[in-house]
Amino acid sequence: IVNLSPCFPQGILERLDAGEIVIGDGGFVIALEKRGYVKAGPWTPEATVEHPEAVRQLHREFLRAGSNVLQTFTFYASEDKLENRGNYVAEKISCQKVNEAACDIAREVANEGDALVAGGVSQTPSYLSCKDKAEVKAVFRKQLEVFMKKNVDFLIAEYFEHVEEAVWAVEVLKESGKPVAATMCIGPEGDMHGVSPGQCAVQLVKAGASIVGVNCHFDPDISLETVKLMKEGLQTAKLKAHLMSQPLAFHTPDSGKQGFIDLPEFPFALEPRIATRWDIQKYARKAYDLGVRYIGGCCGFEPYHIRAIAEELAPERGFFPEASDKHGSWGNSLSMHTKPWVRARARKEYWEKLKPASGRPYCPSMSKPDGWGVTKGAKELMQQKEATSEQQLKELFQKQKI
Amino acid sequence: IVNLSPCFPQGILERLDAGEIVIGDGGFVIALEKRGYVKAGPWTPEATVEHPEAVRQLHREFLRAGSNVLQTFTFYASEDKLENRGNYVAEKISCQKVNEAACDIAREVANEGDALVAGGVSQTPSYLSCKDKAEVKAVFRKQLEVFMKKNVDFLIAEYFEHVEEAVWAVEVLKESGKPVAATMCIGPEGDMHGVSPGQCAVQLVKAGASIVGVNCHFDPDISLETVKLMKEGLQTAKLKAHLMSQPLAFHTPDSGKQGFIDLPEFPFALEPRIATRWDIQKYARKAYDLGVRYIGGCCGFEPYHIRAIAEELAPERGFFPEASDKHGSWGNSLSMHTKPWVRARARKEYWEKLKPASGRPYCPSMSKPDGWGVTKGAKELMQQKEATSEQQLKELFQKQKI
Amino acid sequence: IVNLSPCFPQGILERLDAGEIVIGDGGFVIALEKRGYVKAGPWTPEATVEHPEAVRQLHREFLRAGSNVLQTFTFYASEDKLENRGNYVAEKISCQKVNEAACDIAREVANEGDALVAGGVSQTPSYLSCKDKAEVKAVFRKQLEVFMKKNVDFLIAEYFEHVEEAVWAVEVLKESGKPVAATMCIGPEGDMHGVSPGQCAVQLVKAGASIVGVNCHFDPDISLETVKLMKEGLQTAKLKAHLMSQPLAFHTPDSGKQGFIDLPEFPFALEPRIATRWDIQKYARKAYDLGVRYIGGCCGFEPYHIRAIAEELAPERGFFPEASDKHGSWGNSLSMHTKPWVRARARKEYWEKLKPASGRPYCPSMSKPDGWGVTKGAKELMQQKEATSEQQLKELFQKQKI
Amino acid sequence: IVNLSPCFPQGILERLDAGEIVIGDGGFVIALEKRGYVKAGPWTPEATVEHPEAVRQLHREFLRAGSNVLQTFTFYASEDKLENRGNYVAEKISCQKVNEAACDIAREVANEGDALVAGGVSQTPSYLSCKDKAEVKAVFRKQLEVFMKKNVDFLIAEYFEHVEEAVWAVEVLKESGKPVAATMCIGPEGDMHGVSPGQCAVQLVKAGASIVGVNCHFDPDISLETVKLMKEGLQTAKLKAHLMSQPLAFHTPDSGKQGFIDLPEFPFALEPRIATRWDIQKYARKAYDLGVRYIGGCCGFEPYHIRAIAEELAPERGFFPEASDKHGSWGNSLSMHTKPWVRARARKEYWEKLKPASGRPYCPSMSKPDGWGVTKGAKELMQQKEATSEQQLKELFQKQKI
Repeated sequence: IVNLSPCFPQGILERLDAGEIVIGDGGFVIALEKRGYVKAGPWTPEATVEHPEAVRQLHREFLRAGSNVLQTFTFYASEDKLENRGNYVAEKISCQKVNEAACDIAREVANEGDALVAGGVSQTPSYLSCKDKAEVKAVFRKQLEVFMKKNVDFLIAEYFEHVEEAVWAVEVLKESGKPVAATMCIGPEGDMHGVSPGQCAVQLVKAGASIVGVNCHFDPDISLETVKLMKEGLQTAKLKAHLMSQPLAFHTPDSGKQGFIDLPEFPFALEPRIATRWDIQKYARKAYDLGVRYIGGCCGFEPYHIRAIAEELAPERGFFPEASDKHGSWGNSLSMHTKPWVRARARKEYWEKLKPASGRPYCPSMSKPDGWGVTKGAKELMQQKEATSEQQLKELFQKQKI
Repeated sequence: IVNLSPCFPQGILERLDAGEIVIGDGGFVIALEKRGYVKAGPWTPEATVEHPEAVRQLHREFLRAGSNVLQTFTFYASEDKLENRGNYVAEKISCQKVNEAACDIAREVANEGDALVAGGVSQTPSYLSCKDKAEVKAVFRKQLEVFMKKNVDFLIAEYFEHVEEAVWAVEVLKESGKPVAATMCIGPEGDMHGVSPGQCAVQLVKAGASIVGVNCHFDPDISLETVKLMKEGLQTAKLKAHLMSQPLAFHTPDSGKQGFIDLPEFPFALEPRIATRWDIQKYARKAYDLGVRYIGGCCGFEPYHIRAIAEELAPERGFFPEASDKHGSWGNSLSMHTKPWVRARARKEYWEKLKPASGRPYCPSMSKPDGWGVTKGAKELMQQKEATSEQQLKELFQKQKI
Repeated sequence: IVNLSPCFPQGILERLDAGEIVIGDGGFVIALEKRGYVKAGPWTPEATVEHPEAVRQLHREFLRAGSNVLQTFTFYASEDKLENRGNYVAEKISCQKVNEAACDIAREVANEGDALVAGGVSQTPSYLSCKDKAEVKAVFRKQLEVFMKKNVDFLIAEYFEHVEEAVWAVEVLKESGKPVAATMCIGPEGDMHGVSPGQCAVQLVKAGASIVGVNCHFDPDISLETVKLMKEGLQTAKLKAHLMSQPLAFHTPDSGKQGFIDLPEFPFALEPRIATRWDIQKYARKAYDLGVRYIGGCCGFEPYHIRAIAEELAPERGFFPEASDKHGSWGNSLSMHTKPWVRARARKEYWEKLKPASGRPYCPSMSKPDGWGVTKGAKELMQQKEATSEQQLKELFQKQKI
Repeated sequence: IVNLSPCFPQGILERLDAGEIVIGDGGFVIALEKRGYVKAGPWTPEATVEHPEAVRQLHREFLRAGSNVLQTFTFYASEDKLENRGNYVAEKISCQKVNEAACDIAREVANEGDALVAGGVSQTPSYLSCKDKAEVKAVFRKQLEVFMKKNVDFLIAEYFEHVEEAVWAVEVLKESGKPVAATMCIGPEGDMHGVSPGQCAVQLVKAGASIVGVNCHFDPDISLETVKLMKEGLQTAKLKAHLMSQPLAFHTPDSGKQGFIDLPEFPFALEPRIATRWDIQKYARKAYDLGVRYIGGCCGFEPYHIRAIAEELAPERGFFPEASDKHGSWGNSLSMHTKPWVRARARKEYWEKLKPASGRPYCPSMSKPDGWGVTKGAKELMQQKEATSEQQLKELFQKQKI
């Protein structure tokens, strides 16, 4: 029996302050790459203009799966990044058009249900190429103008590897007066300059973020470890904020400091690492137990993974998402299967205990990550004051042929 | 540089007779289950009526990926199957409406490009519960009436475990005068009564199929092994037919006679088995080398898998599919990536040689299949004349508690 | 409680005819290579002269573990092979001395218990380099002379890849009047000329062997599959013989036609494939159930593996081997362990169900075999009449650079 | 070309002070359990009296493999432990006899070459059951009396989980005036009371040990990590000592605080974890590079593993061990193999790069450890002052049913 949420739309903070669980959405770039609308490498969201129907459909699937927030598909939609793409997009599409279309599509679908729209910004090439604070902030402000014009419900600064840039982003977004969430794509080792998760959280909250956490780069277990460190950092600093997690739906126990980017399978052979719905149910429970109340996903999260969060936490929330009409809890829809041994799989214990095989006996179960994220020389360089930018590190990297 | 196909729509046989490669589409039930529109267990396609936009979008993605044929989403849409679903669908939707909507959606999208529409029928509960030939044929005929009314381009009888039923289906479909393709969901061991792939192919061609092959249940390697046996069977019998393969995009080296259904991971923990795009490029090449010219996929095939077929065979065909605008051959779009070690992955050798890790060190690489498909007792029973139906076998199975 | 065997030494055939289980010994070349007395590559047994204490100790360990037969360590001790070794052995040791010492050591240890001594011959370089029947037989006869002089209890022709040569060996050994056992190192595909296991068994029995079976090259499961085919071949031909199996104690599910030789791990990285004692108990039971009554091992079988056979079949035999004094059935000696969770492992169910981890997450679980044993070109060549010898095949192989 | 060591026997400290590499021996209890002379669970060395020939032979194999030290087989040969064994040994053998025989056998074999004899003591039941310092020391002193009577060359206190007991052992052994080495069976997390490796090393050196390090419980990589922490602890404390490592020859990346004991495969299914000779060559190099000069092994180390250390460090030492007569460096003896593709394995690059397959596709690559060594409750208990003994912890463990 499926009940729809009784809530009327409220602000994100009202919901979280009231102790509600807020379910985020999943990963757009990976899902739309597989569907044929995003190019891996640049990972830019011009699809909002080129193929709005595809973006709209994915939003709708997340909404049906239980998402309470629809993020505008504006990842890497800063002007400097869109220019960087080079000219593989035949007709030039302006940054403003991409962002506006993203807002319109998200709002249109949000109105089909009980969801908020969040405008999102992410790290910029300007920061990585050592532009100054004013220049970087100008880039964020340009996107913020669109979000204000389109009146999104709140704002998210996400996918930052450097807390300094994330703080700048939060400062700009706070100019709007809207609530701001901030997530970094870091693991327990901290940001690319070695700032610990606890310290990152403290800086973000001091800059004005009401919700902090992590997104992308690591699997649910590692991400929650990082969120735990953030929580402890905030407690030590006697700061309050809501916690948020939007990890990968890929298993990355073997990742280095930069997460899945450095795994040899990124981005075109990650399939064997994709989380099952049951893996995600465990994640949702663990996140909840840790005190995280904004629980979503990033790359690899498909609609059914979001549904898994909503189903795991249905007892706490009191209702199932719409898409559970097409899903039995813990596989119980299999009780209709024609074969008796498949019917025998229609139970929680079966799926909870299953250790799924890869079907790939010639492949290993873990890989060694590439990159200077894991090389000693690079780690030391990063901790040096004089190598503050990724650009500089890259140059050093290339010179040393590490 | 991407060129669109110069072909004008022609009939399926004209294309194949002219030596063209025809690219099929991918798997609807698994993809739409993940998107939230199909229920695992019953696996029925009422989404054509309930959520046409979701079905339309998936068709469109396959079209963009290179599919030359859009199959109507009428899998398990026979009247007896739809009734079997029980009453989990709140409002009763008629078999006719489901089939009509499926035809309309497929045609609408096919018209957006250069694709044919194929009406599809699949195995029926009537056969499995030992209804007689006339009754089973009546079930197929009911779907065929819709296909004729909606004027599909050709017909496919697919997903048959028993060649006897497949032959009946072909006989009905041939009444239409349209070309008929027929694929069985069998492996090299043959159908559930022990009829060899070669014999199955011979019977299907004699019944009127112009195109024969396999779909579903097994991975590309095993499926092509089965097609090879079909090809040899036809050669021995001096029969001519085009070959077709639409395998799983899951690795199933450990499957038993009934394929992935019997693997413990079916259907909710198959993730680690999902094929990469590179696995599919190898499949496309191998299928082509074997002489298969209708090359598509079944469960697990997402749009990017179909694009992989189109890209692998682009040299032979002379053009790339539309969605290759958002994909570099062999990962060359990564040459735009910011990290030098990721840029180093922008080449064919890298992806061809990669053995992708599962990220699951606590899981095995193969599983033991369940079910009487693999039990000795059942195998013997199946070879006995008196146990001709799956229903009877199931009863025997249950009595014996095998 | 451990009881020693009540049997007085009897001949091998008396024992087998009486329905007794005869336990063979394990692998000498691999065990003594690890102990530092045999060189991998040549694999010759000059240790019988150079380090008799080491050979004696290994025999003694097998005797204590339950072996009823001690094979003379005369593997590859034919004159032509010993010459082939080249001159890595500083002082030239004659073929006769090696064989005599082997007989003396085996007899000395056999007398410490209830064991028979079997003189063993194996395949020869003479055959592989296309010497004629008379020449090859002369090589075997030279070893036989020593066995007769030293009065071994019976004879074994083992490790033959070509049934033709095995038949010649049996014919020579039969000249002695002593019972002859013959085992081939083949899998279910048959010998290197494509003679099926059933046919091999028939030819060996017709040549005079009273006991036939397989040794080496494949794991217990595959080896028993081969023995099963031999058994069926004999039944069809209405011939009677005792069955014997001495497989590897390495898992080789991924082997090609030539077994573990072609696996990339051979011979210096086979460790992860080593069978546990529990694997061997399963093998012993399976062999027994198949009707095999001479049950032993080959490469990889250490004394504790032989003990596992003796313990598994203790209920049938009525007694345990001496070395079981130092072993609890199914791990029950762990009940004395200091840690409670280790004590919890002192039971059959625990070890029977355990799926042991490799501790090697960066390694695959299967490998692709090398060699022309698995190449199509070579297979075809082997089936051609004109390429009857391995030597010729090798030359063809080298020319073709397969 | 193999040269024997030109050294005349010197004391252990003279050798190490002169910068020589000293190669230890391997694991006796695991090797002799497999050979049939030691019982798993009690793991006591009564074989020195019952089967001296078996102990002698194993010593001899290690000597031939390159060991410069032969440890008396006196592991767990303290009086309290031998009594604990219960009465599975039919005839009661006195502690003194076991220790004396161990000394005699080791000396006899040491005299066959260039090796020192080290008398060894290990942790005692007396300590674990909370006997006081005087009582525990009395136990060690009883063994020491035998070592003095038999005039061993130096002394080793090994296999201690609690540094407090190790310190007591060192204090007793120092009474002899002979050099003392001390190794703990701990990982980077430190001893069972949470004393860090660095602190353990400091305490042992202060107690009189000239050589400190680790043995058993963890694989080479983890063990060297621990030794590194010891080295750093000593540097910080400005203490000098020689470093020693005798790790497992099992891969244990998945072990918890108590190492391989807690892995589900311990002790009867560790086979897939056994290190190859090439793994050990890497270990020897890494140990050498870290500054370790007493390099040996513990459980799982067979003679060929010790030979691998000696071969890897032959360039530094200027000579090969005797057993290298039967081994080609990096597999070059395979150049004599009959099959060309096996000959192709006769090179360093091949074996260095090989990722050996387990041949066990149904098994995982890592396991979850058992025991309170990894449970949170237990860890906290251990850090509490009131639960100082393992016995108390065990009781708590049992009460809590952790």
